[in-house]
Amino acid sequence: MTTIPDPARLTADLIRCPSVTPDEGGSLTLLAGVLSKAGFTCQRVDREGVPNLFARWGKKGAARSFGFNGHTDVVPPGDLASWTHPPFSGHEEDGWIWGRGATDMKSGVAAFAAAAIAFVTQTPPKDGSIILTITGDEEGPGRHGTRALLDWMQANDERMDVCIVGEPSNPDRMGEMIKIGRRGSMTLRIEAQGVQGHAAYPHRARNPIHALVRLLHGLTSTPLDHGTEHFDPSGLQVTTVDCGNPASNVIPERAQATINIRFNDAHDSGSLDRMIRARAEAISAETGISFAISAEVSGESFLTRPGPFVDLVTGVVREETGIDPVLSTSGGTSDARFIKDHCPVLEFGLVGHFMHQVDERVPADQVRQLARIYRRVLESYFS
Amino acid sequence: MTTIPDPARLTADLIRCPSVTPDEGGSLTLLAGVLSKAGFTCQRVDREGVPNLFARWGKKGAARSFGFNGHTDVVPPGDLASWTHPPFSGHEEDGWIWGRGATDMKSGVAAFAAAAIAFVTQTPPKDGSIILTITGDEEGPGRHGTRALLDWMQANDERMDVCIVGEPSNPDRMGEMIKIGRRGSMTLRIEAQGVQGHAAYPHRARNPIHALVRLLHGLTSTPLDHGTEHFDPSGLQVTTVDCGNPASNVIPERAQATINIRFNDAHDSGSLDRMIRARAEAISAETGISFAISAEVSGESFLTRPGPFVDLVTGVVREETGIDPVLSTSGGTSDARFIKDHCPVLEFGLVGHFMHQVDERVPADQVRQLARIYRRVLESYFS
Ligand SMILES: [Zn+2]
Ligand SMILES: [Zn+2]
Repeated sequence: MTTIPDPARLTADLIRCPSVTPDEGGSLTLLAGVLSKAGFTCQRVDREGVPNLFARWGKKGAARSFGFNGHTDVVPPGDLASWTHPPFSGHEEDGWIWGRGATDMKSGVAAFAAAAIAFVTQTPPKDGSIILTITGDEEGPGRHGTRALLDWMQANDERMDVCIVGEPSNPDRMGEMIKIGRRGSMTLRIEAQGVQGHAAYPHRARNPIHALVRLLHGLTSTPLDHGTEHFDPSGLQVTTVDCGNPASNVIPERAQATINIRFNDAHDSGSLDRMIRARAEAISAETGISFAISAEVSGESFLTRPGPFVDLVTGVVREETGIDPVLSTSGGTSDARFIKDHCPVLEFGLVGHFMHQVDERVPADQVRQLARIYRRVLESYFS
Repeated sequence: MTTIPDPARLTADLIRCPSVTPDEGGSLTLLAGVLSKAGFTCQRVDREGVPNLFARWGKKGAARSFGFNGHTDVVPPGDLASWTHPPFSGHEEDGWIWGRGATDMKSGVAAFAAAAIAFVTQTPPKDGSIILTITGDEEGPGRHGTRALLDWMQANDERMDVCIVGEPSNPDRMGEMIKIGRRGSMTLRIEAQGVQGHAAYPHRARNPIHALVRLLHGLTSTPLDHGTEHFDPSGLQVTTVDCGNPASNVIPERAQATINIRFNDAHDSGSLDRMIRARAEAISAETGISFAISAEVSGESFLTRPGPFVDLVTGVVREETGIDPVLSTSGGTSDARFIKDHCPVLEFGLVGHFMHQVDERVPADQVRQLARIYRRVLESYFS
């Protein structure tokens, strides 16, 4: 007979696996063991030193397939001396579980693993499957994490019809917020090249800083948009600007800046790239300063439009917490940006307090409540 | 009997003294020897490792006292292999004298020294004195050069009634340009301090780059003025802007910029400092970004207004060269910025070609012509 794991206990067990990105620390091995015992087919999909776990209950090609996604890697604990309890102790006291990953997101993984095990053990669906994709590289570069799992699934005819990412989604209270999309994110590196010269003879030089400052001021002084139906306004931040000229009487030859844009569905990375290049070219034409621009796209914006799947999760959250969740697209990127190319995806998890902080901790009851919500979502989905 | 030195020969002799700032390289010793023989009282006024030479012909407290100022230090020769003739060889060929300092400004020093010696030897003034101040630190920081000589003169009751600085003043042809003033120069270092944060959550951070870019754009997008009666427009150059934030998802806490301003007599360093601080404060009030600004003033602008002294030099230059010189205030700073606090000062010297360049060289005849001009200026002044 299968033992149904307590999600809070499982969270503490996972915290005791020191899985700072990209170390697995025993976390995926632990999960694979627990899931296998409950009848899940487990498969490690490690890529380029990144550990990943794929687990499926039910048949490949079942009529309906429900997915959960999460990560067991954690950010470094920082100064160990600052922690009240050692960061990989999984210490439990007064109803709290302490340690790195307590909220982000070993608890979320433990909650959906325990919920899935309970569901398939106690009320197995007839022609359904449950797929768990768990990566060891969400906090790192993420090139060989969830993306590699999805590629592997595609190559192996594995599919999810819908997916919940178990990242913390609630700002303050359980049930407040479901994330149905995320803004896109891109980084542009801009180099302005002019002509070096003496500060006293600017007519013989061309100052790249003046042109760069003009471009940056134009980009930061007016908003990119005012928000859309489901999204906050897009945001543009200049994250660095550098020249490194130590001589105060010399006009430098080059200056660089980096811009990070979090954009909603009024844009995509291509339209933003074109807009910035057009502005740069207009300034070039006037000043003779040339710009070299390179763009790196972390992810396009995406939106899982309100509909049956969103309604289902919203209904369960409301019933379990008594709160009507806001459908939000706020916040940074998550691996949902990869999953959205495969199936409707949303994010619902714990309250995001203490993420990446010293003394990260989570109430054991909140983890159990999250597992109950996931369990009811599965029941409702397969009913 | 005093030998009148040939200014071209003396230039070559001085070039052979390797006097890269702050090394004297034998140059001031050589000059002191030549001047002493001609009856000049010579006094080294070395300060903090900087060699300086004061030389006076005639009595202290004479009715009229004419000054020349110059420097024997030179900028480094750079890549020796690039020179056609070794930079400290004083090589003479086809009427050219080659070497570092050939135009800037061992030739100017040789010309006024030779002119002064010829004048006092052949047609000594009755109740007049000639004062030469020659520093070994004009190309360097200049803190203990001409300034120290002037301080020493003041402390020792030495005075000049007027002074010519022998720096190259002509852009292309001898006689084209007399400099009757210089723009002031100041450097401001600006640090913007905001609140660090994640690029996805800008409402929890304050981006110092955006505020800094706004300040800099305001300063560079409109001219400070459109020039004044004797001056070109003031110029403002941002010479560097730095942040050094390697993380493209992080809004940094601080960003810095350096601004160099070359300003005319529509401003002074105080008014510019106040203007920039006021603009910064207005941006602070709106954005919550604080600015720390420090200013370093290299020199205020100055102007020796057209009058008897300028007319005298202009007349001599016109007679000797056949060209009507332009009275200019263009170019970088020079030690005239210190002298102007003591007496009317102007700059007239050689054609400024090859200054600070590889293969610096000067036509021997041009040095002799400059010496003739200086000699006639002395004759006219004391007549
Ligand atoms: Zn996470
Ligand atoms: Zn010079």
